[in-house]
Order: sequence, then structure tokens, then C-alpha cells
Amino acid sequence: MNHATPDVVSVDARTGEAVEVIGAESTPAEVAALCAAADAAVPALAALGVAGRAALLHDMATELEQDGETILALADRESALGLPRLTGELARTCAQLRFLADVVTEGSHLGVVIDHPDPAAVPPRPDLRRMMVPRGPVAVFGASNFPLAFSVPGGDTASALAAGCPVVVKAHPAHPATSLATYGALRRAAVRAGVPDAVSLVHGQAAGVALVTDPHIAAVAFTGSVRGGRALFDLAAARPEPIPFFGELGSVNPLVVTPAAAAERGASIAEGLLGSFTLGMGQFCTKPGLAFVPAGEHGTALQEALATRGADAPTGTLLTRSILAAYAEGVRELAAQPGVRVLAGAEPRDLAGRATPTVLRVPGAMFSEALTEECFGPVTVLVEYATEEELLALLGRLPGSLTATLHMGEGEEDLPRRVIDVVTRRTGRVVCDGYPTGVAVSWAMNHSGPYPAATDSAHTSVGAAAVQRFLRPIAYQDTPQRLLPPELRDDNPLGVPRRVDGVLAGTATSPTG
Amino acid sequence: MNHATPDVVSVDARTGEAVEVIGAESTPAEVAALCAAADAAVPALAALGVAGRAALLHDMATELEQDGETILALADRESALGLPRLTGELARTCAQLRFLADVVTEGSHLGVVIDHPDPAAVPPRPDLRRMMVPRGPVAVFGASNFPLAFSVPGGDTASALAAGCPVVVKAHPAHPATSLATYGALRRAAVRAGVPDAVSLVHGQAAGVALVTDPHIAAVAFTGSVRGGRALFDLAAARPEPIPFFGELGSVNPLVVTPAAAAERGASIAEGLLGSFTLGMGQFCTKPGLAFVPAGEHGTALQEALATRGADAPTGTLLTRSILAAYAEGVRELAAQPGVRVLAGAEPRDLAGRATPTVLRVPGAMFSEALTEECFGPVTVLVEYATEEELLALLGRLPGSLTATLHMGEGEEDLPRRVIDVVTRRTGRVVCDGYPTGVAVSWAMNHSGPYPAATDSAHTSVGAAAVQRFLRPIAYQDTPQRLLPPELRDDNPLGVPRRVDGVLAGTATSPTG
Repeated sequence: MNHATPDVVSVDARTGEAVEVIGAESTPAEVAALCAAADAAVPALAALGVAGRAALLHDMATELEQDGETILALADRESALGLPRLTGELARTCAQLRFLADVVTEGSHLGVVIDHPDPAAVPPRPDLRRMMVPRGPVAVFGASNFPLAFSVPGGDTASALAAGCPVVVKAHPAHPATSLATYGALRRAAVRAGVPDAVSLVHGQAAGVALVTDPHIAAVAFTGSVRGGRALFDLAAARPEPIPFFGELGSVNPLVVTPAAAAERGASIAEGLLGSFTLGMGQFCTKPGLAFVPAGEHGTALQEALATRGADAPTGTLLTRSILAAYAEGVRELAAQPGVRVLAGAEPRDLAGRATPTVLRVPGAMFSEALTEECFGPVTVLVEYATEEELLALLGRLPGSLTATLHMGEGEEDLPRRVIDVVTRRTGRVVCDGYPTGVAVSWAMNHSGPYPAATDSAHTSVGAAAVQRFLRPIAYQDTPQRLLPPELRDDNPLGVPRRVDGVLAGTATSPTG
Repeated sequence: MNHATPDVVSVDARTGEAVEVIGAESTPAEVAALCAAADAAVPALAALGVAGRAALLHDMATELEQDGETILALADRESALGLPRLTGELARTCAQLRFLADVVTEGSHLGVVIDHPDPAAVPPRPDLRRMMVPRGPVAVFGASNFPLAFSVPGGDTASALAAGCPVVVKAHPAHPATSLATYGALRRAAVRAGVPDAVSLVHGQAAGVALVTDPHIAAVAFTGSVRGGRALFDLAAARPEPIPFFGELGSVNPLVVTPAAAAERGASIAEGLLGSFTLGMGQFCTKPGLAFVPAGEHGTALQEALATRGADAPTGTLLTRSILAAYAEGVRELAAQPGVRVLAGAEPRDLAGRATPTVLRVPGAMFSEALTEECFGPVTVLVEYATEEELLALLGRLPGSLTATLHMGEGEEDLPRRVIDVVTRRTGRVVCDGYPTGVAVSWAMNHSGPYPAATDSAHTSVGAAAVQRFLRPIAYQDTPQRLLPPELRDDNPLGVPRRVDGVLAGTATSPTG
């Protein structure tokens, strides 16, 4: 054992005690070797074909389920998120692997386009066939708050593998034992598929830096803080060969209650908002951190309901002691801003090391930029607006967010439309009459948004389109059938959806098509 | 006139003489005002709808054609590219505007996906509807070598406008009068459409820097040198809010001649290669700068044919005096590398200020990284390989390229397949038995490639997919029909292609579907 290499320690989130040493931090040489092995695995992963990769993802889900009991116990110990939540998260993680397998099996993600030659075009057009190919090895940074669904076996790993890219995961230090256990399950499936280097795991902050700067790494996927994410983004951009960095960083997720909604169902919104900002002890990237409520009788009633319910909300354990410390500090900073009043919540951190849910309130006229920074944990800031114009002006000052939520009155149209117009330029998902903290895994999901919600708002980290991050196009010009990938051959042996000579296969461009 | 602001001068490329002052360089305040106006124009451009924007693009093409005679005369004076070539380029530019209008009229670029609610899903799925929306104002940097098709009215401007993004163009200093004239034509169409700020024009290097760092700019499109492009890329990445930088930088465009191809038609390949690397005096981003030819009788014959023909190739005027100086310097550096011999070409720059086509040759064993840097102008380097293994190893050492070309024998399969496997990881387009210098504008074209060919190999700057650079997704969750964009409404009033509940509209997912 190299005593120059720090231990990787698994900590019990509830007690703060170190439970076991699960290994040593990865050395630069180890990281380089794993990245080279990942690069060498690109052809083998390609050779599996879409069907083989889909089978690999299904097999990985099965392996995770087989180790479910062990994985859940470790994840609960390391995250304190509780078995019910984690059981759901494991199901989601496995469903996500299977969903992405189905997505790539259909083949539309390949974006196959075939243009037959057209000598009459200006300039004359040769035979051109375009499809998406894997970028190469992907570095994935697991997040603290979803030790399964956004960590080693999470959406980034699943979509990179689905795209055909080997993955090197940097384990999150908050749950190294969970990371190792889930990696073990994925690895068994990879070995069985004959591509053992399709997934590997590294530990330690220095290993993360080594990963992002390794010449074999072709793209990075990251979920975490603005500070950590931006530092890695900067490294990726500064490389001799810059690589794309798909980071999901910070988001305040504004929620708007129109006067009509407050009048119709203020109490129920107060209850829903409380449930949303305290879900998982506020440790969701989609937690509503700012709620715009109208001044006046109904808005005041909503505030009072939230104050009363918030004061009764239970304290809870956060993922790590450092997250707890950051929460306490963040709440104090928010509360110290001009005009901010505490509606519910005592000390943000109690003597037992648990976090206290907190509701703050500020008049719209006193709103400041300091209130737009994400504070991870169970706190939300109510912003009381006096007029519609003030509301729209305030929304126009917000940074990019993953979500923007709107509660409106029955059949209300004018104000909701104006709100949606403003937030559409600043968010990746608009939620109506609901709460943003659920993130469905589906074809239409978008989990992204203008910076700092994401480093590239054109890409989602959840849903079918997540696969696109790890693909790039290539065109083959005048290439004989015998040398084309099967997806581009005239006979389309894999039956992938295609656009041929400008026409989407199977769709009609005219009534007679 | 502010005498602190440098003049913008139009130079006759053939004489090197300044012909006229066409204005002053843009001040930082002017750039900021134009970017703010572009940002304010986003809603108006959106309000035109896809049909309105398509009409705008068609109108722009018509305006360019109406001013064609003036534009062509200016472009010929400023570029020395000659009226035949420029007449073709204007036709291509107008065809490109109309093609992209047709692309967005179809609507598939919006990537509309509708998932109806599914309470049985894990986690339960709400109603989710996803589509692409414009990123916001785009900065476009015109290229020197295509004063029309990759400049003010070029593919970047056309695809940004098609996507719904206002454009601020930084004129290339090599053709400011052409830039002003083409801008005038675009502007007339924009004014008529009621969105005068949809396109604007700035001049000067400082204005370019101001553009890339302006907070209203949401993306940058650039075609030019590695050095200039990388400097701007770094600025874009270092902003407080980083923005995507779609740069097409340098490319050596390797061309491979297999032994079988050399035996079958070496002389014709020599002729074709000469035509390709001297086309437009070698000032194409897709110019084949490296050609791998086999050792032995047929390869030697090919080399000799190229040496003979190359020696007779006419000298020509380059775009600017500084490009000529860089060409002369670049050729001298290439020729000074170990093992390099000059097969054709005397002094790269003659006394009349014209460039001399040059053919160099190096044995594969002496190949070095210094030979992989793009040298803009009519020069190509033949690399003589002794064995197939040496060829594949050499190809594996090349940086990213826009294209890779393969000349093979009739029915040849094994070596071509191995070459394609290697170059697929390093290029954006594989050309078989042809030449890379034509870039068709079509659905399947890809004009991109791993760095330094492009700063993001996932995006093309030519073809239908070029529009995608300027779009980002947004999802609407549980949003009432009355508040949805028409593309997402159940009745699909615009008839855009959509995926509904996982099924691509109009396509069958099973034989009975």
C-alpha cells in the first residue's frame, strides 16, 4: 500500500463517523492507464453494434437489481436519504438503463441522412450519407445527491454507453462504497459482454483533474456545484484539444404564483411548495429556491400558511457534514440580505447536526442578485411582488435555471403567457401548476438550461436526448456499399429511421406522398 | 469623424493598393448597442414564425441577386478569385439561404417530442412537450476565402436566422466593401420584414473581441485560422457565462492512394489531386494538404506525373498580401523539414506577388508533426509509405480534419476498410475516389471534424444540420393547450414532424404499427 496515496473512506452520513476504508485514491498513472484502456475499448464497443450495447445496458440493470440489497444499504448509510427514496432511485436507475437501451435500439439517435447524387444541383451533389458516431471515452463525475441515478450507474454513464462511448467514472467522495458496489455490478455485465474496459472507476479530486485533462478523454459529463463544475469546465476548455464539458451546475428554479392562483388555492400551493423544497431535505437540483408570491390578502395568507407549516417541518440529516455547513452558511447569508425576514426556521443547523427547513421572505423592491445563488438544502425565499410589471421585471433579472414553475388561475391566460415568454429565455423546463422536483425519464424530458443551470444549454442530462451529447456526425461521400456502415447502406439491414433525399422515411411530404 | 477610430480600407487584391475607405472600425459602444438591439429583436424574429423567417431568407437571396453585379465586382476586386468562381459562389450563397428556408419550413429541426402523461411510469410521468428554441443573438465571423458563401450572407448567417437568432457579423478585413454591399442587401430584406435588427455588421479586430464578450451574444460562429479562432474560443469559454463557440479552424485533409489505385489510375489521380490542391489557389479549408502515396513503381509514376504537371501549373494571386507572406513562410518551413524534397515549385512567391504551386515529398519514415499543420495556399505534401502497416500508423498520428479522402482499386475491400476505420475517428467526412474541395449544401453534408478542424465536432457549418448550432431545447410540463407554442399543441396546426409517446409520427414501429 502506497502511503503517499490518501485513503478513500466511507462515512456514515447520520453519525459523521468513518466506517471503512474502501481503497486508495487513484494515482495519475492509474488514471492514464484506465483512459488508454477506455480508448482502446472504443472499437470493441462499436463492434457490439446497437443491439449488443442495448443488451449490455439491460444486463447492467439486472446486475444492479441482483445486488440491490447491498447497494441500498450502502447508499442509505452513506447518504442518509432513507431506504424508501433509495429503493425508488434504484428502480429509476435501472429503468433509465433500459429506456436508453430502447432509445438506441430504435436508431433515430443516429440521425441517418442519405442524399443520392444530384449532378444538377449547384454545386453538383455527390452521394452523401451522414450518421452519428461515438465521440470516444467519456469522463463522468457522479453527483452527491443521487448516489445511484446521477452517479456511477446513472444517466450520464447509461447515455454514454448507449452512444457507444466507454466511460471512466470519478466517484463522488460522499459515497465511495456505493460507487464501488454499483461499479462492480456494471463491470460484471461489461466483462460478460467482452468489453471489460467499457466502464472503470477512479477516486479522488486529483484523479478528477487528471481525467479531464487526459488526451484520450473526448467529453466530460458532470453534475455538481457551480464552483467545482466551472473549475473543471475551464480545464476542459483550456486543453490543447478542447473537449465538450456537459455540466449541470446550479439552479434556483423560480416558482411563480399569480394573484389568481393565490386566490383560488393559496393553501394548497403552500403545502405543495413546502413538500417540494424540503423533498430529499432540499437536496435536489430542481428544488424551488425562489417563489414569487403576490402582495395582498391572498398572497399574505399563502405566506402565513407556509410559515406555519414550515415551522412544523421536521429537521433532517444532509448528505455530508460539509453540505450541512454550507447550508448553514448559505441560509445565514440569505437571511442577512437587506429586506429579508425569516418566516420559518430557527438555527439552520441544530445541535444534533441536522438541518432545519427555512422559509425566508423579501419584498420585490428589495430583491438583490445575492438571492439568486443556489443554496443547497431545505430553504426557499419568497419574493413578494406588488404588480405584474414588477413580477416580470424580477423574472427578467434571474440567471439561467433548470426549471421555472408557474401556478395560475383556472383558465387564466394573459399573465401566464407573459411569464412564460420571459422564463422561456432563461430555463430548460416550464412546469405549470405543479412542482419541479420530479424529473421524469422520457423522450420529451429536458434537464438543462442556460448557464449556470448547464454549461451547454443545448444538451440534456436526462431523457432520450441525453445520448446526443456523446455523438458527433460523419459523412461518407461516394462510398461503395461494401464499405459503408450497415445503417447507411441502401438495404438498411438494421431498419433505422432515415431521411432519404430530403424525405423522412415513412412520413409523407405531400398529400400524395 | 472620430480620428481615434481607424479607417476600414478596401484593398485591391491584385495590386495590393488601397482603393477606398468604406467607413471606420466599430467602437465598443457601437458593438454594445448593436448586440443589445439584436437581443431586443429576438421576440420579433420569433414572432415571424418559421414561415416568416423562411420568407425572410428567400427575400434576402433575391436582394443579393438583384445587387449581384455590384457585389461580384467588389468581391472580385477584393479577393482576386475571379468572376466565374464568384458567380458560382453567389449562386451557392443564394441557394443556401433558400435551402435553409426549406429546411426550417419542414420543421424537423425543432425536434418536437410529446409525451402524454403516464401515472404508471417510474417515476410517474407528467405531460411533457419538448422543442428547440433559438439560443439568442449570434456573432458571426466572416472568412477571407469565401467572401460570399462563408461571409456576411453565408451559411452561418443563414442558419442562425433560420433558427430564429439575430446575427451580428464581424466583417473580414480582406473584403470590407463586399461585406458592406452584401449586408446592405440582407438589411433591406430585414427592414421589409419588420426586423431591422435581425442582421448588423461591425468592423475591426477590437469589435470582434467586444462581440464575443458581449453579454447579449449567445453563441459564436467562426471560420478562419487556428490561431485567431482559438483566441476567440478561449474568450468565449472564459466569459462569466460561457457561450458555445462553433469554430471551423485548420485542417490538412489527408488523401490516401492505395497501391491498387496507383496501379489502376495513377496519372488520373495526379491530375485530380493537382486540380484539387490548386483550386482557388489552394485557399479552401478542404484542400488536400497531405497525400499518402505508395512506394514502388506506380507510386513513383504518380509522383512524377504530379511533379511534371505541378511545374506547369500557373501562379496566381492570393486573397491578401499577408496570406501570400504566410504561404511563402509556410512552404519554406515545410520544405525545411527533415527528409522533405521539392518535387515541383520554385520560390513560393514570385516577383509579381503571385503564389507558385508547390509539391513536396517526404518518406513515411521521416514524417513529422510539423507536416500536419495546415499551410493555406497551393501546396501539398506527398507522403510515401512503404507498407500498409506504415500507412495505417501514419494516419493514426494525424490531427482532426474536415475530410479524409481515399482512392482505392476497383472492388478493393480490405485496405480501404482499415483506412476508413482509422480515419473515421479523425475526420468529419470520408470521400471515396474523389476530391474533398467541393462542399455540397444538402441534408447529409457534414463540414466539421475533431479539433482543430472544428472546436466542436458535433456541429457542422454546412448543410441542413448547421441550424442545430443555434437552438436549445425547452420542455413544457403540464402546460395548458392555450399557452403552448403551436408546434406543441395537440392539433399540430403547423404540421411539423413529431414524436408522440415515443413513436415518430408517420413511421411504423412494428409491422402492424
